[in-house]
Amino acid sequence: MKDTQERYAIGIDLGGTNLRGALVSRDGNIVKKIKEPVTEEVLDSLSGVVESLFSEQVAGIGLGVAGLIDRKEGRILISPNLPVLNGANLVERIGSRFGVPVTLENDANAAAVGEKMVGAGREFSSFVFFTLGTGIGGAIVHNDKLLNVAAEIGHMTVQADGQRCHCGNFGCLEAYASGRAVISRVIAALEKGRESLLRGVSETIYKLTTEDIYRTALDGDSLCREALRDAGRYLGIGIANMINLMSPGAIILMGGLTGAWDIYVKEAIKEASKRALRELFDAVKIIPSSLGDNAGIIGAAGLVFEHGVIVE
Amino acid sequence: MKDTQERYAIGIDLGGTNLRGALVSRDGNIVKKIKEPVTEEVLDSLSGVVESLFSEQVAGIGLGVAGLIDRKEGRILISPNLPVLNGANLVERIGSRFGVPVTLENDANAAAVGEKMVGAGREFSSFVFFTLGTGIGGAIVHNDKLLNVAAEIGHMTVQADGQRCHCGNFGCLEAYASGRAVISRVIAALEKGRESLLRGVSETIYKLTTEDIYRTALDGDSLCREALRDAGRYLGIGIANMINLMSPGAIILMGGLTGAWDIYVKEAIKEASKRALRELFDAVKIIPSSLGDNAGIIGAAGLVFEHGVIVE
Repeated sequence: MKDTQERYAIGIDLGGTNLRGALVSRDGNIVKKIKEPVTEEVLDSLSGVVESLFSEQVAGIGLGVAGLIDRKEGRILISPNLPVLNGANLVERIGSRFGVPVTLENDANAAAVGEKMVGAGREFSSFVFFTLGTGIGGAIVHNDKLLNVAAEIGHMTVQADGQRCHCGNFGCLEAYASGRAVISRVIAALEKGRESLLRGVSETIYKLTTEDIYRTALDGDSLCREALRDAGRYLGIGIANMINLMSPGAIILMGGLTGAWDIYVKEAIKEASKRALRELFDAVKIIPSSLGDNAGIIGAAGLVFEHGVIVE
Repeated sequence: MKDTQERYAIGIDLGGTNLRGALVSRDGNIVKKIKEPVTEEVLDSLSGVVESLFSEQVAGIGLGVAGLIDRKEGRILISPNLPVLNGANLVERIGSRFGVPVTLENDANAAAVGEKMVGAGREFSSFVFFTLGTGIGGAIVHNDKLLNVAAEIGHMTVQADGQRCHCGNFGCLEAYASGRAVISRVIAALEKGRESLLRGVSETIYKLTTEDIYRTALDGDSLCREALRDAGRYLGIGIANMINLMSPGAIILMGGLTGAWDIYVKEAIKEASKRALRELFDAVKIIPSSLGDNAGIIGAAGLVFEHGVIVE
């Protein structure tokens, strides 16, 4: 990696709905960016995206993929939202085609690395990172290093006898505090005939988004406010648990649902303040990601240069 | 620490009920051991115990104390079970008196270091350590290093709308799976007149111990079996959460309640197997501590020599 020719890395962020790729400089600047929807042909799309970003100046390729990763083998053990990737050896597949080093990392971990490099995590040596989208993911940075652990924050049980989660467990944080959970709850209430300003917002209630719900909540709709507040309360439990376990300097929140900050996240902070050990809560800052959707591609590229954050 | 004169360290384990001290060799062997009950005069007792173990061959003193620790300042922030220690600067107090380096660590962390040095953790580079006594404590060893984090596993919420915990939160693991929780539950049932073989086991029901409860459970008593099984089920939730978060090689269990292995821990393992992500559960071993009550004093002494485990 010492060749000055090789000034860039390609960062890939492969989540449940979008495939993002970018050519990223050593210092974390995005030079070129591509976004595609994820389809059944995601492996071909991935090769295509890398192809269109590749040049002789590329030192390596970093892949951030939703799911449980076997780093040593470069394999995806299981990717619940992208089952076509289960068992795929992406490192071999991409590496043999492009002839440069390829690193594979969980998508939330990659995004946390991005935030640590050039984002909201820069000033914290230890933070816990939450991705709040359709599902809930996480990553743990401790003493300036990304911990090589599953950090499946979304699959922490917070309600022992709670709702079934799609992972098979009952009472997971994700079953209460995720975008999917908020939308399910709202749809179930609408199906039961509950009055709400949401009626008429989208063509059918089955196409409602968390943005629709937040916007309608700001208009004073009680169903939307309740759904976001309840989800926020559970998020607060998850945050308190991570504070009590990891005593971090910051909790950094990323993902679509953070758009609903004034209801969802504020409720979470209130709940966490009541639940976490006082001395630990007083020492933590709860803040939004500063890179947003770019965190994953910047972090994945950063892993190629081992930029500041070494995966341990 | 290079002086060959200094072959020993003093390890102190100061929990809620007992003060243990030992003279420990560099390789983790206990040469001399003292145990005293904790009283209001615990600070004097501590000095006395160190005094009686001290000699010119002692390289330093390691203190493992129940509570939240400020390592940098050498202070105890808060010790819920030993309020007399709140705010005490033990490092200064003991250091100035004996003139050797003093290290302060949380008691569960110290015990985890002991297990890592010469106990059940020796063969695992990453493990999560649970202390299952009156309360529930924890420690996290990752990549052969003790993580310098709170690891307050007992104060992880596992039942959002659950019972009040003495920490002020509701639904903590400790409120369901600790020795205190098992005993409270049994006493409450007996007070309500429930039939049980426990009646007559101790002079008054308020003196029942977890050992009494386990022994009576083995005699087939249904109240005792239920209490231990329910506590075990919650312990299983706590174990599953730590597996999903830290993807460790082992979960190591220490403390009085592990004596009830065949009911309490077996139930926990069954529950964890249903709740943790399959790929992670399959990679973890759930095993007992091998040092038992000696883990804390050996580990505290080990911190003096930074023996194998560096606190990060």
